[in-house]
Amino acid sequence: MTETTPNHTQTVNGWAARDPSGKITPFVFKRRRNGAEDVTIKILYCGMCHTDLHNARNDWGLTTYPVVPGHEITGIIINVGNNVTEFKLGDKVGVGCLAASCLKCEMCQANEENYCDDIQLTYGGIYWDGSITYGGYSTMIVSHKRFVVKMPDNLPLDAAAPLLCAGITMFSPMKQNGMLDQPGKWLGIVGLGGLGHIGVKLGKAFGLHVTVISTSSSKEDEARRRLGADDFIISTNIDQMEAARKSLDFILDTVSAQHPLGPLLELLKVGGTLVLVGVAEKPLPLPSFPLLFARRKVVGSLIGGMKETQEMMDLCGKHNITCDIETVKPEGINEAMERLAKNDVRYRFVIDIASSSSNGVH
Amino acid sequence: MTETTPNHTQTVNGWAARDPSGKITPFVFKRRRNGAEDVTIKILYCGMCHTDLHNARNDWGLTTYPVVPGHEITGIIINVGNNVTEFKLGDKVGVGCLAASCLKCEMCQANEENYCDDIQLTYGGIYWDGSITYGGYSTMIVSHKRFVVKMPDNLPLDAAAPLLCAGITMFSPMKQNGMLDQPGKWLGIVGLGGLGHIGVKLGKAFGLHVTVISTSSSKEDEARRRLGADDFIISTNIDQMEAARKSLDFILDTVSAQHPLGPLLELLKVGGTLVLVGVAEKPLPLPSFPLLFARRKVVGSLIGGMKETQEMMDLCGKHNITCDIETVKPEGINEAMERLAKNDVRYRFVIDIASSSSNGVH
Repeated sequence: MTETTPNHTQTVNGWAARDPSGKITPFVFKRRRNGAEDVTIKILYCGMCHTDLHNARNDWGLTTYPVVPGHEITGIIINVGNNVTEFKLGDKVGVGCLAASCLKCEMCQANEENYCDDIQLTYGGIYWDGSITYGGYSTMIVSHKRFVVKMPDNLPLDAAAPLLCAGITMFSPMKQNGMLDQPGKWLGIVGLGGLGHIGVKLGKAFGLHVTVISTSSSKEDEARRRLGADDFIISTNIDQMEAARKSLDFILDTVSAQHPLGPLLELLKVGGTLVLVGVAEKPLPLPSFPLLFARRKVVGSLIGGMKETQEMMDLCGKHNITCDIETVKPEGINEAMERLAKNDVRYRFVIDIASSSSNGVH
Repeated sequence: MTETTPNHTQTVNGWAARDPSGKITPFVFKRRRNGAEDVTIKILYCGMCHTDLHNARNDWGLTTYPVVPGHEITGIIINVGNNVTEFKLGDKVGVGCLAASCLKCEMCQANEENYCDDIQLTYGGIYWDGSITYGGYSTMIVSHKRFVVKMPDNLPLDAAAPLLCAGITMFSPMKQNGMLDQPGKWLGIVGLGGLGHIGVKLGKAFGLHVTVISTSSSKEDEARRRLGADDFIISTNIDQMEAARKSLDFILDTVSAQHPLGPLLELLKVGGTLVLVGVAEKPLPLPSFPLLFARRKVVGSLIGGMKETQEMMDLCGKHNITCDIETVKPEGINEAMERLAKNDVRYRFVIDIASSSSNGVH
C-alpha cells in the first residue's frame, strides 16, 4: 500500500474520495501508533472547507487517492505520548491545516510554520515517517503536539471547528497588518461566505468599522442584522463603489474566483492594504494606476502559524466568536459537497462525526 | 488662447510638441508674473524622462497640445516673492513633477502632496489660476515655493537634475518600506535604466546588498563595475532565477512594459515586498500562489512628497549621488527622443538649456 507505512497499527473508520468524481464513501485505514510527542484525538466534529471539495475532485491536479479530507477538526484527547506535558486525557482540542513542518527553519523558529518550505498538510501531505496524511473525515487522528490547539471551554466544538481553518485564515492577516489594535479603522470584507462571515465577526470584535462587499444584494440583511456589519456595498453597483472610494483602511478579499482588483483597490485610502486569502487558479489582473497613485498594497496570506492559531482561538473564546454552521451526518457528506459547490450554505457545514453508526476506534 | 491666462505677462522661450508626432519645435509662450509666494527660476538643465516621450506622443491619450515637457528641472533663482523667506536670489534649486496641490487635504498636511487628489503636474496640469502648466523644456519657470527643492552645493546641476523625478521615484518607496535603515538587507532592482541605475546607487549608499535583475546580459559588467551592484540575474534564465529564490527582502520594479510578476515574487523571502514604480498601461498578471504562500506584498509608489524630495536631495548630496547622464542641446531633443524610445541612453538625457541660442528671458 502506498498510503500507509507498515508500522501503522491503529485502524480507523473514515470517509474518502476515491477518484475525481469526488464521491465520498466509507474508508477503513490505519494511523500510526501514538508517539512520544503525539496525542491521539477522538474526533467529534470536522468542518467542510472549500479546499476539501477541490481536493476530492482533484481540481488542482494534486490529489492522491484515496483522499480523506478535513482540516477543521475538534475532539477529545484519548492518548498522550510520554513527552507531552501540554495536553492531558480528556482535553478539548483542535487540529487545523498543518500536520508537520521542518521545525528547524527560520519560519518554524519564528512560529510561522505555515510558511515553512516543508509544510505537510493534514490531508494529502507526507508525514515525517513517509506516510500520506489523512484528514478529519474520520473518527480518530494522531497529531504531533506542536500542531494541536487547545479549545476554549466556552466554545461549542461543532461551531468552533471551522475556526481552525476559516478563522485563522482571516485572523492572521488582521494581526500581521495591524488590524487588531486600531479600533475605529475601516475594514472591507469581500465575499460573505465561510471566510467572510468570520471576518465580519472578528472585525467587530476588534472595534473596526466593517463594510461587506458582495455581488449579491440578497446578503445585505444578513450581513447587517445577523453579523453586525456597518455597511454593505454591491460590488457591481458603480454608484455605491464610487461613493465608497478611498474610504477603507483594509480589505480582506476572500474571493478565489477570477475577479478584477482595480475597483477594490479604489476603495482603499492612500496607503491602504488589500489582503488576498483566496487561492485563485489563474493570475488576477492587477492594474498599476490604483496601486501607484495611492501607494496601496496587495498582500497575500495563507492560514497562520500554530502560536497565532492558539491566540486566535483564545480571542474567539474571549469574544465568544464561533462560526454559523449547519451540521451534517457523515452519511450526508456528498449532499453537503453538492451544496458547497453551489455556495448553498450559511456559512459552514460541520460533520457530526460521532453521529455515525461506525464511529468506533478499532 | 487656451494655454495661458490673460494676466500671464512673462514671455519665455521653450520647446514644445504640437501633435502626436511628438516632434519638438521652438515655442514662445507666457508664464505668470512672480507672485508673493513664487520664485522665478532661470532654467539651466532639464532631464528627459520617459514620461516626456509618452506625453509628447499622446501615448496615454491625456495630452493637450502644445505640450512643453520636462519635470527634472534645475537652475538659479532670479526673482523671489514678498512672502518667500526660504529662498534668495542666486540659489541653486530644482523643480520636479509637481506644480501644485490643494495644500489642505490630509495628504498635503502630511507632506504627501504627491497623493493629493488635486495634484497638478509641472506640465499638462491646470494651475490654481486656471492656466495649463508648461514644463522645463524652456528657459524660465515660475514656481510656488512649496514645490521648489534646494540643490546641494556639491552636486552638478546637470547630473543632479534627474534626481527630481527618477531619484525621488526610487527613494520614496525605499523610505516608506524601511530600506533606509536596514543595512545588510537584500534589494533587487528590476530594469537598469534611468530609474534602476539610481536605485542601485541609493541601495549601495544605504548599505544594502543590491541585485540587478535584467533581461539583458549586456548590462552585467556595467551594473557590477560601474554602479557597484553585488549581483546580477538575467530574468529569463530559469536556473539563475531558481538559485535566487527567496533571497531578497525588497524588489524595486522599474519596468513599465507588461511583464509577469510571479517569477519576481518568487525571489522574495517570506514577507518580502515588491514595489511597482513603472506605470504599466495594462493590468499586470498577479498569481496568487507566490503571494499567499509567503505572505509577500506588492506595493505601488508614485514619485514622492516635497519634504521627502528635499530629504532625498540632501542625502544624495551627502553621498555624492548623481545620475549618469548624456547632455544634449535643445536642438538635439528630437534625436534624443528617438534614442530614448529605444532605451539607447545610459542613463538619462539632460538638456543643456543654457546652450541654446535663444536662451534669453524676455
